[in-house]
Amino acid sequence: MRQSQLFTKTSKTISQEEVSVNAQLLLRGGFIDKLFAGVYTMLPLGFRVLTKIETIIREEMNRVGGQEVLMPALNPKENWVVTGRWDTFDVLFKLTGSGDKEYALGASHEEVVTPLVQKFVFSYKDLPQAVYQMQTKFRNEARAKSGILRGREFRMKDLYSFHHNQQNLDEYYERMIEAYFRVYTRCGIREKTYLTFASGGTFSKYSHEYQTITEAGEDSIYICDTCNIAFNSEIIEDVNHACNQCQNKELREAKAIEVGNIFKLGTKYSAPFGFSYSDENNNQQPVIMGCYGIGSSRVMGTVVEIHHDEKGILWPEEIAPYSLHLVSLCQEPDHIQQAEVLYEQLVAKGIDVLFDDRPDVRAGEKFADSDLLGIPTRVVVSAKTLAQQSVEIKKRSSEDSDFKSIISFLAEV
Amino acid sequence: MRQSQLFTKTSKTISQEEVSVNAQLLLRGGFIDKLFAGVYTMLPLGFRVLTKIETIIREEMNRVGGQEVLMPALNPKENWVVTGRWDTFDVLFKLTGSGDKEYALGASHEEVVTPLVQKFVFSYKDLPQAVYQMQTKFRNEARAKSGILRGREFRMKDLYSFHHNQQNLDEYYERMIEAYFRVYTRCGIREKTYLTFASGGTFSKYSHEYQTITEAGEDSIYICDTCNIAFNSEIIEDVNHACNQCQNKELREAKAIEVGNIFKLGTKYSAPFGFSYSDENNNQQPVIMGCYGIGSSRVMGTVVEIHHDEKGILWPEEIAPYSLHLVSLCQEPDHIQQAEVLYEQLVAKGIDVLFDDRPDVRAGEKFADSDLLGIPTRVVVSAKTLAQQSVEIKKRSSEDSDFKSIISFLAEV
Repeated sequence: MRQSQLFTKTSKTISQEEVSVNAQLLLRGGFIDKLFAGVYTMLPLGFRVLTKIETIIREEMNRVGGQEVLMPALNPKENWVVTGRWDTFDVLFKLTGSGDKEYALGASHEEVVTPLVQKFVFSYKDLPQAVYQMQTKFRNEARAKSGILRGREFRMKDLYSFHHNQQNLDEYYERMIEAYFRVYTRCGIREKTYLTFASGGTFSKYSHEYQTITEAGEDSIYICDTCNIAFNSEIIEDVNHACNQCQNKELREAKAIEVGNIFKLGTKYSAPFGFSYSDENNNQQPVIMGCYGIGSSRVMGTVVEIHHDEKGILWPEEIAPYSLHLVSLCQEPDHIQQAEVLYEQLVAKGIDVLFDDRPDVRAGEKFADSDLLGIPTRVVVSAKTLAQQSVEIKKRSSEDSDFKSIISFLAEV
Repeated sequence: MRQSQLFTKTSKTISQEEVSVNAQLLLRGGFIDKLFAGVYTMLPLGFRVLTKIETIIREEMNRVGGQEVLMPALNPKENWVVTGRWDTFDVLFKLTGSGDKEYALGASHEEVVTPLVQKFVFSYKDLPQAVYQMQTKFRNEARAKSGILRGREFRMKDLYSFHHNQQNLDEYYERMIEAYFRVYTRCGIREKTYLTFASGGTFSKYSHEYQTITEAGEDSIYICDTCNIAFNSEIIEDVNHACNQCQNKELREAKAIEVGNIFKLGTKYSAPFGFSYSDENNNQQPVIMGCYGIGSSRVMGTVVEIHHDEKGILWPEEIAPYSLHLVSLCQEPDHIQQAEVLYEQLVAKGIDVLFDDRPDVRAGEKFADSDLLGIPTRVVVSAKTLAQQSVEIKKRSSEDSDFKSIISFLAEV
């Protein structure tokens, strides 16, 4: 992509409305645009990051047998009445359509997925199943803040699993714990992310959250450094301020953001929909469910909170909008032409490259923009480098740069 | 994908509620599920088809310089008041959120994209631009019918272009006409699709629709077979029942479905938002806009209306849920094992293959399902074919099948 053609621009203005680092840097870099509080447009650079995060999640969900669908955002009121959540889910957007039909905007999809899977599952032979989607979700938050960490409209992956008994759910749940950690590893936030005990429900004492440590987080967690797990402050009394695995009482408190939540639902949703299956002896048994959510746009915001410095963002390799930022400082027609050829060669090699070909922007501004955008590797081509038939390569995460001949750069890239 | 693990099942039941062929076949095949009138879930097979259609559209929009974004579905009332459409857009879903804030659910995104692009475009040097998204749209239709041809919630690609003058828009519009035809060619509906003059607006006498001939269509068009263009019945009086290109009066009437619409908007949306740019002489000039829509889920339904027979769907190659349907009729453990090996070899080769490995389904039922699902190529492996170390290959579109040795099948696939 040629930066001269990108319709967005970077900005030096720090939004007065936004207090969060993720919103400030993502707005300044032209990754997102704010339509109103809690609702953002994903601009081309941000959409690329979001797509890469969602691709990682998709791959990991497919690895654990997830089947991808796309459920409607418009949910009939009836489905939410069945589970009792029409009146109790406090952030549900409600609206009325033609014929006075009432809808909820999907904030979570147990009310749709349960009767859906029920249509196809009759026997123990049809279980287990795992169904997921990558979708825009809506929540009528009273206060929207924290940039894309907590929005009124956001992107989320939600997977629902269906089992013939508790043991089968428990085994799948363990596989999902690992799948989620693979997602966070690939997104570059694994080291600061803890599997965290959180409040459960009727069918399980605890659920699990994935909490990433950051000052921007709204949650407080207590970390057991022996077991590398944590406890949400909401249950710290329940566990008597001690790790429930090793009884360690030296728990370390930290602020954190929830980047995922997995939950053993039991029959909470299958029961009200009357979703059962016939077992080997032809007896009807209740279907046991689990649910597993990751907010992909929230992960994007969390990455920015974790990976930035005073100059801008440092995107992890696998989710960076581009792998290479080719920055041309060339002024002479002959040099400009050589930079163009280099860009075309990189594109032909299938490299994801952003090419700063803007003719009327000073070097200092180009470097500042490059640091703000946070592409992992910057490659400068200039009169100085071309005199040596070379480019200057610098990692965003490092202060040092290296000169390398264009030939070996192209051979190794 | 192993068919034994797919959570959906085919059905022989023809829905009494659905009159359209696309809904009946897509429901029976397990491509979609109906949540309520006009609102469907995309099931795994349907989601694959939709994704392939959207990938084609994305590639063709990128080829004409489109930059992909994702705009919010929640639109503030204020934006729609600016253009006057809050009160005049008859199928707008409206809702109220916390703080009594009023929203529209995005039915089209001129009200969001215009002030968005305005934030980044100041000078003639910043133009032209083309911005698009692939998104779920909402329309509060009084009557929802025709399956996924006209829904209350549907998938759509909408692109908006921004120009410094009319000529620049006109040139881009011509490029887009060709881009759209490439989409329809790749989706297998080009031959029945006509560029059709339709009513325009304040800024252009006519807009253009792409109309695909089918009895399921809600529109009437008049085709000029000399020019291979058509006229929507809504403007046939305006053109005096004659082709406005060659004056041919022998126009052929047909029922058709609108699968795309492109429109020269002029300053209809830039004017109310005060979106102008400074020209070479530093004078402010109005930005000229165009918009270009394709309903990707509607294209999916149209393909089914065009490509089916009494047994089921015939998916065009490029948008089929899978390229190959490997159907095992094996009963003996040794044969089952050979079928498994063949499946694994196809997967390893990167072939999109659906493997009917269901152990307890009769051959006749497997063949009926295969015809219903409409994957372009069926490959049968059975005791009979394995006796010759071969497979039996049949195109969905043909009555004839061929035996081929497994070795040459694998070499050529």
